[in-house]
Amino acid sequence: MSEPISPLASPFPDMPAVAGARLAVTRAGYKAWERTDLTYAALDAGTTVAGVTTQSKCPSPEVEWCRKALPLGQARALVVNAGNSNAFTGNRGRAAVEAIAARVAGHIGCEPSDVFVASTGVIGVPLPIDKAEAGIDAVLQAPQAGWRDAAETIGTTDTFPKGATTRAVVDGRTVTLVGIIKGSGMIAPDMATMLGFIFTDAAIEAPFLQAMLEAANRETFSCITVDGDTSTSDTVLAFATGKAGNNPLASFDDAGADAFQAALTDLCRQLAQLVVRDGEGASKFIQISVEGATGDASAHRIAMSIANSPLVKTAIAGEDANWGRVVMAVGKAGEPAERDLLSIRFGNVQVARHGLAVEGFDEAPVAAHLKGQDIEIGVDLGLGEGRATVWTCDLTHGYISINADYRS
Amino acid sequence: MSEPISPLASPFPDMPAVAGARLAVTRAGYKAWERTDLTYAALDAGTTVAGVTTQSKCPSPEVEWCRKALPLGQARALVVNAGNSNAFTGNRGRAAVEAIAARVAGHIGCEPSDVFVASTGVIGVPLPIDKAEAGIDAVLQAPQAGWRDAAETIGTTDTFPKGATTRAVVDGRTVTLVGIIKGSGMIAPDMATMLGFIFTDAAIEAPFLQAMLEAANRETFSCITVDGDTSTSDTVLAFATGKAGNNPLASFDDAGADAFQAALTDLCRQLAQLVVRDGEGASKFIQISVEGATGDASAHRIAMSIANSPLVKTAIAGEDANWGRVVMAVGKAGEPAERDLLSIRFGNVQVARHGLAVEGFDEAPVAAHLKGQDIEIGVDLGLGEGRATVWTCDLTHGYISINADYRS
Repeated sequence: MSEPISPLASPFPDMPAVAGARLAVTRAGYKAWERTDLTYAALDAGTTVAGVTTQSKCPSPEVEWCRKALPLGQARALVVNAGNSNAFTGNRGRAAVEAIAARVAGHIGCEPSDVFVASTGVIGVPLPIDKAEAGIDAVLQAPQAGWRDAAETIGTTDTFPKGATTRAVVDGRTVTLVGIIKGSGMIAPDMATMLGFIFTDAAIEAPFLQAMLEAANRETFSCITVDGDTSTSDTVLAFATGKAGNNPLASFDDAGADAFQAALTDLCRQLAQLVVRDGEGASKFIQISVEGATGDASAHRIAMSIANSPLVKTAIAGEDANWGRVVMAVGKAGEPAERDLLSIRFGNVQVARHGLAVEGFDEAPVAAHLKGQDIEIGVDLGLGEGRATVWTCDLTHGYISINADYRS
Repeated sequence: MSEPISPLASPFPDMPAVAGARLAVTRAGYKAWERTDLTYAALDAGTTVAGVTTQSKCPSPEVEWCRKALPLGQARALVVNAGNSNAFTGNRGRAAVEAIAARVAGHIGCEPSDVFVASTGVIGVPLPIDKAEAGIDAVLQAPQAGWRDAAETIGTTDTFPKGATTRAVVDGRTVTLVGIIKGSGMIAPDMATMLGFIFTDAAIEAPFLQAMLEAANRETFSCITVDGDTSTSDTVLAFATGKAGNNPLASFDDAGADAFQAALTDLCRQLAQLVVRDGEGASKFIQISVEGATGDASAHRIAMSIANSPLVKTAIAGEDANWGRVVMAVGKAGEPAERDLLSIRFGNVQVARHGLAVEGFDEAPVAAHLKGQDIEIGVDLGLGEGRATVWTCDLTHGYISINADYRS
């Protein structure tokens, strides 16, 4: 965390323990740094697991490992390595993941497939197996750590630790959800990697946990972008220890399932927004809401086209109500759009309506809105009922400095 | 042209006259500037025309006008306005284009549909009809201008005038091709607009000219990107006056058609590369070649994914051989790719082969290559015969300064 703390940083919240999950951290020494870089979560027998991973066609061996283990639906441990993503390392990278899982399984007496592994950091350098194994031996002897310790340990060039928590009432019992996440922020040649880990004491059957996590993901992690670049290692895992003692949730017909889904989506949204708030060089948090599209998927693609447009992002950095660039980004999305039906607002002020600049709109509240840290852009396509909301940050000199000025 | 001249600028070439085409420029005063901003090309009767326009779903009324007139295949005049793109201006924008075409048609005695119109500059402000009409009256009295005058007059925030020329032998006659183009470079709230105009004295039937221009476009203008943002106004028009006296080309079975296609593609490639060389903030010209893809279209999408990646572009700006970011951009393209078959080179030096870093590759020539202005990235997917080459520039502080620091 050598960069200055993001101006959009949020304080780390008080986060309760989750029965059935215990944390520890240690220094494996993946890089020449003094900080802890190996996070371990012990999970009681009976813990179910779900996960979503990067869409990259060139994923890390950790991602491949998790994809293979997830259908089995059970977890006993999580290992997160920081400082080396182990991506693009061929057979040696795969061997490192297998060695980690085998080492943990040998210690605690479980199947290797019960051990989930994620890594983040430099690409193209195989994770050193000796350091990983020694780290695991050490972390299993380490004192219990807190959520903040873990959130700091999974980070790489993140400028602040990121966590969120919420609760839901399921089957008459209050269940706890907590999550930690690391986001984008890199020093060359590291690659932006989003790793998120969610823990709950609710009892949830694995296939249903998977369905709920995928539903939450569609509205949260899939709706953020910093620079449109997709990591080879992105992974979000959710672990349900079952210690709350509720009747295990198996479908939306079960009492409390809707409440849990709402809580899970809320938690994921908090975590996703924290990643944007630590976007490289970010000085503004931007919410982009699109409505009136021909469908929700179309609205999402248009919103992401706006969110990924360097011209829109630099305009916001310059506090410039440049709605022409928003029109451009709508037009290039390749989705149905009708110039003469399009309306655009900044904050609550309409600046273009039905394909024309609003004559004499009050510029003062627009300028005041753009001077703030939380920016809203609204687009109404006027075509249908499709809607989507996504979040991004502005594009500033800080992004260039972080990614170009520092050499690998 | 208030920005410093691009370090990648090329000198304006000597360009020959094209029989049947005469140029003039004047100051319509679309902006409060002293320079000329209205370009006029008179085209002799019998001139055929072809064009390609932006894929934007929110195009300017000029683009709509050209799309409607192009199927008729004949042209007598071209009017290019600089300083106001007339985009997103509703009925009033359409009325301005119609007024321009009618004014020219009345003066020279042709159909309004024989008059092609393109505009570039600020968005959302209807082009003032009185200034346009007065400008046309003046330009028709103006002395003949040269290609450089026209190339300067169609520019907005371009930092240097851009033109190219070539020749081909068709049907025993040497025909001339010249082109001028304006590219990306903007001061908020102007929008990057690429307008290109090609003139030849060859005789070519309009449908075949259209086919050849589309073929050239696929390999040239469609293969460049500065920031991935697509203008509402992009237009390339090709005019063939027929004054060379060759038997009109109607298909690739005609003698010289292949030679003309090669010359046209070469001309378009020169013009396209000049636009990249004036990319906002550019300090490096980057050629990205992808081979071994499952098909050419797949190779093109992967190459554009690399060319549009902010992380790749900032790495090149930082002269950093960060091949991990190239892997990332391949992986996010959504096209078939196999991590363990992927090879990457910078210049002529392989840095990754078959999914692994090349151990002990010679870093000195890579570092020397990256310090230069012309950078080559090669990717071999190892899957098939598909290949594509695209061109882009790096992403620097200059881009942020141009687009964020200056306010509209």
